[in-house]
Amino acid sequence: MAASPIVRRRSARGDGIVTLLTDFGTRDAFVGIMKGVILGVNPRARLIDLSHEIEPQDVRGGALVLRSAARYFPHRTVHLAVVDPGVGSARRAIAIATPHAFLVGPDNGVLAPAARALGIKRAHTIDVERLVAAKILRGAISATFHGRDVFAPVAAHLSAGLPLGSLGPATAEIEELSLPVCRASEREISGEVIHVDRFGNLVTNIAEGDLRHLIGFSPARLSVSIAAMRIRGLVPAYAAVAEGEVLALVDSWGQLEIAVRAGSAARRLAADRGAPVQVAVI
Amino acid sequence: MAASPIVRRRSARGDGIVTLLTDFGTRDAFVGIMKGVILGVNPRARLIDLSHEIEPQDVRGGALVLRSAARYFPHRTVHLAVVDPGVGSARRAIAIATPHAFLVGPDNGVLAPAARALGIKRAHTIDVERLVAAKILRGAISATFHGRDVFAPVAAHLSAGLPLGSLGPATAEIEELSLPVCRASEREISGEVIHVDRFGNLVTNIAEGDLRHLIGFSPARLSVSIAAMRIRGLVPAYAAVAEGEVLALVDSWGQLEIAVRAGSAARRLAADRGAPVQVAVI
Amino acid sequence: MAASPIVRRRSARGDGIVTLLTDFGTRDAFVGIMKGVILGVNPRARLIDLSHEIEPQDVRGGALVLRSAARYFPHRTVHLAVVDPGVGSARRAIAIATPHAFLVGPDNGVLAPAARALGIKRAHTIDVERLVAAKILRGAISATFHGRDVFAPVAAHLSAGLPLGSLGPATAEIEELSLPVCRASEREISGEVIHVDRFGNLVTNIAEGDLRHLIGFSPARLSVSIAAMRIRGLVPAYAAVAEGEVLALVDSWGQLEIAVRAGSAARRLAADRGAPVQVAVI
Repeated sequence: MAASPIVRRRSARGDGIVTLLTDFGTRDAFVGIMKGVILGVNPRARLIDLSHEIEPQDVRGGALVLRSAARYFPHRTVHLAVVDPGVGSARRAIAIATPHAFLVGPDNGVLAPAARALGIKRAHTIDVERLVAAKILRGAISATFHGRDVFAPVAAHLSAGLPLGSLGPATAEIEELSLPVCRASEREISGEVIHVDRFGNLVTNIAEGDLRHLIGFSPARLSVSIAAMRIRGLVPAYAAVAEGEVLALVDSWGQLEIAVRAGSAARRLAADRGAPVQVAVI
Repeated sequence: MAASPIVRRRSARGDGIVTLLTDFGTRDAFVGIMKGVILGVNPRARLIDLSHEIEPQDVRGGALVLRSAARYFPHRTVHLAVVDPGVGSARRAIAIATPHAFLVGPDNGVLAPAARALGIKRAHTIDVERLVAAKILRGAISATFHGRDVFAPVAAHLSAGLPLGSLGPATAEIEELSLPVCRASEREISGEVIHVDRFGNLVTNIAEGDLRHLIGFSPARLSVSIAAMRIRGLVPAYAAVAEGEVLALVDSWGQLEIAVRAGSAARRLAADRGAPVQVAVI
Repeated sequence: MAASPIVRRRSARGDGIVTLLTDFGTRDAFVGIMKGVILGVNPRARLIDLSHEIEPQDVRGGALVLRSAARYFPHRTVHLAVVDPGVGSARRAIAIATPHAFLVGPDNGVLAPAARALGIKRAHTIDVERLVAAKILRGAISATFHGRDVFAPVAAHLSAGLPLGSLGPATAEIEELSLPVCRASEREISGEVIHVDRFGNLVTNIAEGDLRHLIGFSPARLSVSIAAMRIRGLVPAYAAVAEGEVLALVDSWGQLEIAVRAGSAARRLAADRGAPVQVAVI
């Protein structure tokens, strides 16, 4: 395929921030290599790690971290996410423009929740052959490390002002990620734990808005059931209860969370991702 | 409260370095979000991680890492420390100017040892309401993640030249941290392990100066007792003994340390933070 | 020793990238302190972590990560590697110029594989006394933390344009690292696992070139034996087999690798570094 002429445009904000999210860990050279590749393309790139401790192949875990973090970064940040169990298969590589940011990664759902939250302006398939011909990518693309050979250089070029349309054809569809949705009525909500954070806090898929739709809602009158535990009432902060006590609150993302002050709710309740949670008004 | 006029002054050194120390780990989005917030305020900030592996809620552990590291950073670095078990309670948020650096975090002792070591010029309470009114902080401050909503933006503004006095009223007192002090006479010193590092080296609260006050002190004549072990004489370096041997030395911070060459003293001696250590001249 | 006059020359590329590789972990202040020292010398340095999770004192593990990553960084990057079990002994400190990069660290083999791969232009011993006299290094060099007192400042000065020859005398020899070499004939290859990555993939010391020298070689006709397992044929990518299946492929560094799709070969095969691997044509 012939390379189309590719014109560079400087970033309006000139910031060149590139965030990195992977399941690569930090023991091996993978992440360092991606950073070297990015700096080779755009020596002014500013590299920020979101996390490299996503569980191996945990697309959903990576997608949730990306969705949580993306909105807090400056306009025109490029977010690079490589949780890519299908590397070397027919899964596409994509780049998405939102009004706020660019997202680059495999089209396996890892970008979708962040893209939906930020709003999708345009999505383009990354046409590897075309980019090799245009010398945007080096030849000899491996079948096992597209983070190095495809995603890092694409993210770097975007951070340096390469137009999204140069990457390949526009696409109307991206792979979505089915996140578990809670079932909410005016009397009761059934949800589940979707994330366990470092502190052992249990983040649920029940949003503050769901709680407010319950008839007779007030924070003090809620009953939250998880495992064999029933928690009465929401508190405003971890520090509202004594150390070691189980509590429920609306966390800093607006989600219902079960926690233990100065302890781990995951350990105390033996609860993990997927644990069912019920909420009702007492 | 009405917002007072806030005038910005450029950093004399223009470096904009912000270090981050937390107990957030690197699995979740917490640290990435704080970095996004900082870059949104000061796109020129240069972000350096001190550690995010402080044990959850371990204020003392965080304070020791901050104290160890702060003096090595350039003039006007902003050190942001968020180990904050009392988030959402009445504990204050503070910012401290030393001749060398700025320190920002909860007023729970995590800043105090570094502040005392560097010398306190001025300390100010962070007046959240005032800063929201002045649009230095966004409204909707959460009760669970002040790292994102208060400390990161304050650190970013300081790194961009906001005067400390704009943050809130000066305060004469900050919360101190009681660190265990050794008992030293001219004949004997009783101290304890205050930190176990990654290598399993046991760092004590006995300083080189304490050792030098012992009558008849010479490195070869010291006896160091810990657990069931008595170590005779200090060595100058780990490499002074054979692999696998237990040794005692004055470490690179001037503290007495017990180590195993190419091994872990913590494991070998089954010793942890708090383990008693006695020193005498033989 | 009198200080020779030291003239600074600006980096041709002005990038000032310094990578850091250590066995220090990220719990303690060690890495942060090295970064503070570097920024104190060269406030424009751009700091990139390769890894700090090298196993304590694992010179070979560190050497392999450095060799893997160094070639991906821009021209004139300074690579700082501190895996230094002999700190405080007579082992030398060295700095190496390759056509591509600078390497700084202890002369214990950690730099050698990367230096050999990139090609050595010149190597210089770091003359600590001379550099203290020239005020390139501060006095009071510890015997336990040369990362802070020697290597970080030297790397920072190199990144700011200090000529390599200012560091100390040229040296014709550096300490090599004996990496296990596979035994390859035209009929059979005997090698071993030299690295287990985060995913549990088993990277061997058998290169694609070795495979191609086998009589009758074709990817489908190879037989790879490890532990009690015999794998028939190479696949092009992890995604070529079903989840949970064991596979062999040539990885993104051109080495034979044994993996489990969406799983850990290390765990499945109970194989670790040093596990023997045999290859033959069926």
